[in-house]
Amino acid sequence: MDIRTQKTFEALFALEDIREILRQRLPNTKSPEEENTIKESVNKVRKFLDDIENDAGTPEVRKIADNIDIRSREETNINIQPIQAAGRLTPEARKALIAYGDGYSTCDACRKPFRLDKISSPPIAPFHEQLASFVNMDVARVVPGARRGFQAVTSSLVNKGDSVIVSALAHYTEFLAVEGAGGIVREVPLNEHNIVTADATAEKIEAVKQETGKLPVLVMIDHFDYQYANEHDVKGIAKVAHQYDIPFLYNGAYTVGVRPVDGKDIGADFVVGSGHKSMASPAPSGVLATTEEWAPRIFRTTQMTGDLTKRKFGVKEVEMLGCTLMGSTLLGMMASFPTVKERVKNWEDELKKSNYLIDGLLAIEGSKVVSEYPRKHTLSKVDTINSFDLVAQKNKRRGFFLSDELSKKGIVGEFAGATRVWKLNTYGLSWEKVRYVVDTFQEIAEKYDLQVNKEKNSND
Amino acid sequence: MDIRTQKTFEALFALEDIREILRQRLPNTKSPEEENTIKESVNKVRKFLDDIENDAGTPEVRKIADNIDIRSREETNINIQPIQAAGRLTPEARKALIAYGDGYSTCDACRKPFRLDKISSPPIAPFHEQLASFVNMDVARVVPGARRGFQAVTSSLVNKGDSVIVSALAHYTEFLAVEGAGGIVREVPLNEHNIVTADATAEKIEAVKQETGKLPVLVMIDHFDYQYANEHDVKGIAKVAHQYDIPFLYNGAYTVGVRPVDGKDIGADFVVGSGHKSMASPAPSGVLATTEEWAPRIFRTTQMTGDLTKRKFGVKEVEMLGCTLMGSTLLGMMASFPTVKERVKNWEDELKKSNYLIDGLLAIEGSKVVSEYPRKHTLSKVDTINSFDLVAQKNKRRGFFLSDELSKKGIVGEFAGATRVWKLNTYGLSWEKVRYVVDTFQEIAEKYDLQVNKEKNSND
Repeated sequence: MDIRTQKTFEALFALEDIREILRQRLPNTKSPEEENTIKESVNKVRKFLDDIENDAGTPEVRKIADNIDIRSREETNINIQPIQAAGRLTPEARKALIAYGDGYSTCDACRKPFRLDKISSPPIAPFHEQLASFVNMDVARVVPGARRGFQAVTSSLVNKGDSVIVSALAHYTEFLAVEGAGGIVREVPLNEHNIVTADATAEKIEAVKQETGKLPVLVMIDHFDYQYANEHDVKGIAKVAHQYDIPFLYNGAYTVGVRPVDGKDIGADFVVGSGHKSMASPAPSGVLATTEEWAPRIFRTTQMTGDLTKRKFGVKEVEMLGCTLMGSTLLGMMASFPTVKERVKNWEDELKKSNYLIDGLLAIEGSKVVSEYPRKHTLSKVDTINSFDLVAQKNKRRGFFLSDELSKKGIVGEFAGATRVWKLNTYGLSWEKVRYVVDTFQEIAEKYDLQVNKEKNSND
Repeated sequence: MDIRTQKTFEALFALEDIREILRQRLPNTKSPEEENTIKESVNKVRKFLDDIENDAGTPEVRKIADNIDIRSREETNINIQPIQAAGRLTPEARKALIAYGDGYSTCDACRKPFRLDKISSPPIAPFHEQLASFVNMDVARVVPGARRGFQAVTSSLVNKGDSVIVSALAHYTEFLAVEGAGGIVREVPLNEHNIVTADATAEKIEAVKQETGKLPVLVMIDHFDYQYANEHDVKGIAKVAHQYDIPFLYNGAYTVGVRPVDGKDIGADFVVGSGHKSMASPAPSGVLATTEEWAPRIFRTTQMTGDLTKRKFGVKEVEMLGCTLMGSTLLGMMASFPTVKERVKNWEDELKKSNYLIDGLLAIEGSKVVSEYPRKHTLSKVDTINSFDLVAQKNKRRGFFLSDELSKKGIVGEFAGATRVWKLNTYGLSWEKVRYVVDTFQEIAEKYDLQVNKEKNSND
């Protein structure tokens, strides 16, 4: 970690120590002792500030709670990790984490009917409405990760032995959500371009009907899959599903929060998004949105009555298990939301950067892109078997030669040691950073005598 | 908010802005522009530090992301809110939130077999082992709240129409977890002291057997309930459950993290705890621990195979839906854990403070404690119908007169406006604060001509 980053953390931590003094004091009271401790602590922060300004000093704090390293991956590197990119917090979200870290910090003004999505201070109720309209659906709830959104839907709709249509590129959490409900996944094959089409979905539905004598109870498809981040025909698929009267779950883990998503236009009955994957939010967070039609079923309130006490907990929603995300997880999500709403409008520019980077890699002789091309997403799978892997074969560090070279230049997040088929993500990187990444890959290639065809970089 | 607290937040936020500059810069590069911005930002923080030291200045930042108030409840008040007390973060947890806010920050070193509880850097794997031994069980997983722990167990053990024994004081999340699995709650009655006994549990099991012809499939009892925080005979109940070969779930939402819990000694098959309720952890967090015997069933790995691709996601656990808590939620929990492990040893002193406060309230003529007494927990329910409520009846602010008086003295967290039957919690308050709270209640009583019998304060 560079010293400026180190000292920034030390200053933040020292301020938390000052804050703890404030938390421990009696209200409206000052003791000379306390004043002294605060003076000393403030002076400590002043020294850290000098060090930040001068970019100099000696590290003093190495660990949190004696055993957790300070994470400075984003401060000291360009991170091209495939799934971390769009989850990185905004500064506003980090401030919300600071102010709302205590678990029940959301609940100070919780009043009847005592449910998270009804709280108006902090503005959680309006956030829920904005969230629904953000994906153009009628009702939304926050959930601890997209997977918990899938689970709420499968648990409501899927009975033992029921079939659920998923894609041949379905994420494992979809498998688990179906399995947990007692259902069986039935995969739609990909076409020759690794795309799930409406026709293939219709054929699969027919095949399931033929084989089991029953229609599938749910179609659940990722708009962009986790493997190639190829775009699948969700709109066509929703239409097919509805022709069979089967509800359609739109998996927007890789879209909600990075590009515009219009649930109604797609024809989705359920839209699921991931906070920590695509909404610049803390983990675990996500959104489950649905229509007026489906809301009463998915967000049904408890019907259970205590046999003895006759207690009922009327407004609590069974699938949500009452309240879902409290404290900093929700407030971080809310604090990033204004930025997230704006940033989806920049999707075209994000795609330009994505394609610029891929073109830069393709310019290295022998490299290929495995994802559809031109890229319609910032996450991509590339194949460098005939470029960087040729070097790795002859290098005593094997595939780690590439990680070594990249990290020397401050680039991290590729799968360490992988030089064959691997993934990367450009989301949220500035043009300056994207150019730097391309230049670095090409410089490494040249250093190891791979041919670089600079003209290929047509977007430059 | 007092200006010192305000300026502490402003300094923290300004440092987050500096951190954002570091995040946006190119690696190993300095631009004069950047240096300038950093210099300016550092100077801004310096001004905030002067204000902190002098306890003076004018507020500059009022909102996070333009619509979220800065929460300073813990810095500017003594908070006696019934469920927030033991969830308040430690300073170490707040530092972990700062360093690990990004959702996938836990996952930088995720390697085969790609599961959260196997990650060793940060030390998540050893934390899981320590967590299990902390409650003296064999295996533990972190979950997004205690409710998700109940859900994992009911979803594994309860089939449609099955009966589950709960207490007549069961928390609503237990109802929901049973309902979600298709089961039916059967409540054990309380004895005349509002306690759930082993005998009453045995009778209820017999009654269910008689009525339905089937034994209940699970007994799930809160060690301390959420209403009175009375202690229930979990050890005796576990024994009874086992006599019928029914597994026992120990609900430790109000114990794990505040007092010692020995799952094996109790005879628990499952121990569930809440991070944000009792482990000084961010929300939503919790723990589900079990025995070697039950682990293969509750933490069973996926058996689902893609019909087309033959994909299997071997190590992923169905009920956990793969990985559970990432980022700051988990790291906050881990950072508080050393403190939590130590603080459970202070439970006797916490009880002394709890009883001191209750005695101080009882000294106000007409006040009663509804919870068992002497207190065995720091959460208590009190009845001030014949003391503070008499004042409220004649006051134009009604019950809010008490909230007004308390908040003037920097005490918050009682249910605003309630002067009849209400709850409070002394957990984690220093003796100095507890004395201050008692003195304040008694001063308010005297101000409104309620009789205060000071001798009753025998612990003083």
